[in-house]
Amino acid sequence: MYTEPHCLLSETLSAIRPADAAARAQARNRLDQLAIPPRALGHLLDVAEELAAITGSITPSVRRKAIAVMAGDHGIVAAGVSRFPQAVTVEMVRNFLQGKASINALARQVEANLMVVDVGVAGDLTALYPNPALLERRIAAGTADFSRGPAMSRAQAFRCIEVGIEVANLLAPSTDLYATGDMGIGNTSPSSAIIACLCRCDIASVTGRGAGLDDAALQAKIAILDKALNLNRPDPDDGLDVLTKVGGFEIGAIAGLILGAAAKRKPVVLDGIISTAGAMLAASLAPASRDYMIAGHRSAEPGHSIALKHLDKNPLLDLHLCLGEGTGAALAMHLVEAAVAILTEVATFAEAAVSQADSHGQSAALRPPRTPKQAGAGSPVR
Amino acid sequence: MYTEPHCLLSETLSAIRPADAAARAQARNRLDQLAIPPRALGHLLDVAEELAAITGSITPSVRRKAIAVMAGDHGIVAAGVSRFPQAVTVEMVRNFLQGKASINALARQVEANLMVVDVGVAGDLTALYPNPALLERRIAAGTADFSRGPAMSRAQAFRCIEVGIEVANLLAPSTDLYATGDMGIGNTSPSSAIIACLCRCDIASVTGRGAGLDDAALQAKIAILDKALNLNRPDPDDGLDVLTKVGGFEIGAIAGLILGAAAKRKPVVLDGIISTAGAMLAASLAPASRDYMIAGHRSAEPGHSIALKHLDKNPLLDLHLCLGEGTGAALAMHLVEAAVAILTEVATFAEAAVSQADSHGQSAALRPPRTPKQAGAGSPVR
Repeated sequence: MYTEPHCLLSETLSAIRPADAAARAQARNRLDQLAIPPRALGHLLDVAEELAAITGSITPSVRRKAIAVMAGDHGIVAAGVSRFPQAVTVEMVRNFLQGKASINALARQVEANLMVVDVGVAGDLTALYPNPALLERRIAAGTADFSRGPAMSRAQAFRCIEVGIEVANLLAPSTDLYATGDMGIGNTSPSSAIIACLCRCDIASVTGRGAGLDDAALQAKIAILDKALNLNRPDPDDGLDVLTKVGGFEIGAIAGLILGAAAKRKPVVLDGIISTAGAMLAASLAPASRDYMIAGHRSAEPGHSIALKHLDKNPLLDLHLCLGEGTGAALAMHLVEAAVAILTEVATFAEAAVSQADSHGQSAALRPPRTPKQAGAGSPVR
Repeated sequence: MYTEPHCLLSETLSAIRPADAAARAQARNRLDQLAIPPRALGHLLDVAEELAAITGSITPSVRRKAIAVMAGDHGIVAAGVSRFPQAVTVEMVRNFLQGKASINALARQVEANLMVVDVGVAGDLTALYPNPALLERRIAAGTADFSRGPAMSRAQAFRCIEVGIEVANLLAPSTDLYATGDMGIGNTSPSSAIIACLCRCDIASVTGRGAGLDDAALQAKIAILDKALNLNRPDPDDGLDVLTKVGGFEIGAIAGLILGAAAKRKPVVLDGIISTAGAMLAASLAPASRDYMIAGHRSAEPGHSIALKHLDKNPLLDLHLCLGEGTGAALAMHLVEAAVAILTEVATFAEAAVSQADSHGQSAALRPPRTPKQAGAGSPVR
């Protein structure tokens, strides 16, 4: 797909293996024996199995949590795709570092570390350094306006993915469970464009109101993105080309974070449409990276549901969030920990000496009398 | 509706007032100013407003949490409505006290106290006493088989509701946030019967597979419940009569817990179909108690969605759980705490000096140039 020698990216891609099917089967076997009716903890059990497969262990740890908020700006805001001025990206980064934003409140609640990465914001952040929670990896002062040409160069696309991998590697020694987050005024536009391209679907079906566009502004946004896709013609078989033509620096960095987590065999919780656009890029570069993704929530953006379906991911939450920052992923981290608690702390029927159901889903009183030989199956385990 | 002199119940009912509309409006006002796009935290903001209204404070505390698991048995299991033997109720109570059940794992995770109440299990629990986590309030060794007559006497119905109120009162000094839980083999049957009666809908539409009935057993369960409702003819305008005719001791106790919480102006998170049947009884006795209920999740049981709609409650989670024990409510407690964190810890646009969107939902670039007077609305707050 690409031939450029990028050591970190190619090393990372070659380290990504499918999740461990044997550990998944072992987890399934244990979960099927828990002292609960069959699959009575629904989606939580699916997540527990995924975590076993990801980590290769039926006693996975997800205790040490980190949320990486990738920040970048977007030239396409000049075309009028957002209600908010571009200055808000920098203002929100400052807000994150002051601990007063939504993601701070939710990260504190779930006891996750928060790292903000400047992958390319347009404004000046120098007053905010040095700060251990802010990493400077600027690629440029925002992307170019992709309604007029490519969002970035191919070299920049590689670079922002490698920033994400580097962040995953930096956090790895202290992190069991990652979450992705984003900040970038206008970034639902590149996200919708990436999703439309990789899902090979109409841009109108994956474009939403972002931070609150009205009907007319939404139609204008769709027209701008449609024109931009026709102008740039990104190659859906080449994730790097899609990122180059219609992407964003923070979206590439999210893709890189996911690839880095997958290479380390660690789970990563996806936030909303921006993170999921990054996840689609990651899956395009390394299909097996999909195994390491857990969908945190379903956002109110229509393109998000389409992207999740494309990734075959069932989100944990559906709270009509459309904020980004990693907020949906942070909320879902509690449920991921709950899945591990179920897998590791709950007794089986045998361990708890609890009687099992009869084996055919029919109550004893409704069944014809069983022969003595059959009766053993339904008797108490103890 | 009823004339019997029951001091605790009548005192409690008369103490229940609608939630505080002024505090709700105050919370709404603050949430609308948070440095996020309009309503971008979706359902979490609704819950934050509800908590303000419930507690009468825009800085509500939900830190001290308690889950009450009400346990009772059901005579109707003799008719063949469950796959599991009745002995499982006692076995699971023992499992709760050993800390090895699903609700234990989830209660520990969310740091909630767990109290198990024997409101009327059929088996012998004496070996489990004394235990500070187990409260003995037995009304009888299980209800009567309501496919043959009323499930209990009207006096017993009062008594089990008062048990729930008593539990709410016992826990109140150390509890900011309650959750309801249940244990009782066969208890989806009375729950479906209660919901069918109070929603005035067909029993088939609110009856599900419980702990895993197959198609034939589900049809048999529906036929049994249909016959039981025709035999007992509970009065849908009299919640006490519904509980008496087709209820369960633990369901009455759940109703009581909710009434007790409402009287103390404290929020209570509902678990699945059994808890929500209890909530419908509570709402029938005191319509304003509805204001104090937060729907934890939507279970896989079809009757649960119908009951939630009847209560006009939008559940926080939809994970295809169908376990009971309070598991869905325990998981949702984290989201309730998250809602409070958003309300109390996140800065407004003004506090964080973050620029606001222009006021019409249209991007600046798409709008006609504004006059100087208009321009002020979209300029940075700082």
